[in-house]
Amino acid sequence: MADILPLDTERAAPKRASLEPLMKLVGDDLTKVNHAILERMHSRAPLIPQLAGHIIAAGGKRLRPMLTLASSRLCGYAGQRQIGLAACVEFIHTATLLHDDVVDESDLRRGNATANVLWGNQASVLVGDFLFSRAFQIMVDDGSLEVLRVLADASAVIAEGEVMQLETSNNTETSEEQYLEVVSAKTAALFSAACRIGAVVGGRPAVEADALESYGRNLGIAFQLVDDTLDYSAQQATLGKSIGDDFREGKITLPVLLAFRRGDDEERLFWRRCLEDGEQRDGDLEQAMRLLQRHNALADSIERARHYGSIARDALGIFPDTEAKHALVDVVDFCIERAY
Amino acid sequence: MADILPLDTERAAPKRASLEPLMKLVGDDLTKVNHAILERMHSRAPLIPQLAGHIIAAGGKRLRPMLTLASSRLCGYAGQRQIGLAACVEFIHTATLLHDDVVDESDLRRGNATANVLWGNQASVLVGDFLFSRAFQIMVDDGSLEVLRVLADASAVIAEGEVMQLETSNNTETSEEQYLEVVSAKTAALFSAACRIGAVVGGRPAVEADALESYGRNLGIAFQLVDDTLDYSAQQATLGKSIGDDFREGKITLPVLLAFRRGDDEERLFWRRCLEDGEQRDGDLEQAMRLLQRHNALADSIERARHYGSIARDALGIFPDTEAKHALVDVVDFCIERAY
Repeated sequence: MADILPLDTERAAPKRASLEPLMKLVGDDLTKVNHAILERMHSRAPLIPQLAGHIIAAGGKRLRPMLTLASSRLCGYAGQRQIGLAACVEFIHTATLLHDDVVDESDLRRGNATANVLWGNQASVLVGDFLFSRAFQIMVDDGSLEVLRVLADASAVIAEGEVMQLETSNNTETSEEQYLEVVSAKTAALFSAACRIGAVVGGRPAVEADALESYGRNLGIAFQLVDDTLDYSAQQATLGKSIGDDFREGKITLPVLLAFRRGDDEERLFWRRCLEDGEQRDGDLEQAMRLLQRHNALADSIERARHYGSIARDALGIFPDTEAKHALVDVVDFCIERAY
Repeated sequence: MADILPLDTERAAPKRASLEPLMKLVGDDLTKVNHAILERMHSRAPLIPQLAGHIIAAGGKRLRPMLTLASSRLCGYAGQRQIGLAACVEFIHTATLLHDDVVDESDLRRGNATANVLWGNQASVLVGDFLFSRAFQIMVDDGSLEVLRVLADASAVIAEGEVMQLETSNNTETSEEQYLEVVSAKTAALFSAACRIGAVVGGRPAVEADALESYGRNLGIAFQLVDDTLDYSAQQATLGKSIGDDFREGKITLPVLLAFRRGDDEERLFWRRCLEDGEQRDGDLEQAMRLLQRHNALADSIERARHYGSIARDALGIFPDTEAKHALVDVVDFCIERAY
């Protein structure tokens, strides 16, 4: 198994996990989802499809809606409800991205200027609100109170997570547990909801819905841990994101948590100055990256991600071996391997 | 009838409309709503009840939830569903206020510092998102897809209206029709939804649901026209709002629309400089108020509000004469008379 190979050997392994099996499985459905997204972005206010189109078209992997599509497939669902519901998931995700970029004062996302830079914070807040409402309209059209509950709950938890993140921001005393609570809420809640929906439309028993939710939640945590690690990795440039965004914003992520705890007093003064006091000078990001390296904080963050990835993989154990199951397992590997 | 009395006589009239009959009718229910609001604001993130409590406790008339309560009563509903649903309406309203204050960069609301000033824009955006999600959770608990549709539709329309307002902002060429479209969307949609819910929980036929929706929509338009007029009235100070907020933000409201159209070239240059170019000097607000006076723009805005108020009143015509109906009629009069 890959898990027992040393890091270097694994990095050199010829075959790498990719999203291709997932794309092969749900590609046709995803085309329909993209169509539904375009159709439902429509509004009397021309700025709405314009701004929403900018961020939705900008790419992104459509990972969350693909999880809804693949989970529906895994549950043997043969209807069409997954299309609209996957669009809901993407709308909710996009709404949170728009609001995140305002909250973080970001100016780049996936290598493109963010909506708040192009159209202003005001429009980003309001179009986010619109997409969020539109998602609920689509769910009402779908007509399942159970789906509405899953996504209303997820949305509330996401907002809670974002607020908790504000509260831990710039606080180097944040514990790993607090960090995980934020990640579970702000990221993993939508992953788990996206997956659970598959069992709901498939009319599967609670044990399968719970399994898919667990898969999604642990995958989401692994995904975010890797994301937080990538923010200190040279690789990040290839994603179109500038390295060090989290550092500049004083975000306390797992790599920093580990390095802070493993460092000496002088190093902690450095972290406090940069992240709590926000006093950053030329060369500080480079120094942060050296400290992360010295304490193995990046590699160990990925190890933590592997742990959650394993739980996600095992959660799928109760499902029969199908193409859908293999594709979902590959997503776990992909999310972790993108760290290299 | 009050409508045919000249303005001055009416101002001197001893008996003035108030919200008292409404408070008498739904006071007990409103206490329960306030309790439900406090209970459902709860969150793991302490900042959420803190910030939400600030704006919700700050007062406001609770007009929208009271409309849900009174409409339910008008429809003969004797259960308890109106309590939670009125709380939803207030949560959605509060979420839009939080986002509005960020969008408008306001620093005062009802005489208190706004949440964005006290806790920052970031927290206001996220807590708004939370309240919005929480409203949908309460609706899911209630279990009516029809209510979910009414409020999901209203939420989408509100966001559209706010975006349209952004697009007309600072544009003195905005037509009265465009202005009304914005008002119908950003304000009247929640009033009409709040009222329609009464017919839904009461299980009343579509004609009554439509009548309540029409009442709410027209009341909402009248309410906003008066609000926009008050922003140029000395009376405004007593509401705890600073006069001239709309002027400073370059908002094109009905009084300005009328004065702009009725003015000469020199006056239009003045409005363009102040509202389009945002070049404002000492004395400009006073000059604006003189121009509004010269062209009767404030009084005529109130006349327009009366028109919508009359439609609202007549929409209730199909309901039998009850205490609830009288209270709702009084709301119309109250909303218009607060202009004096």
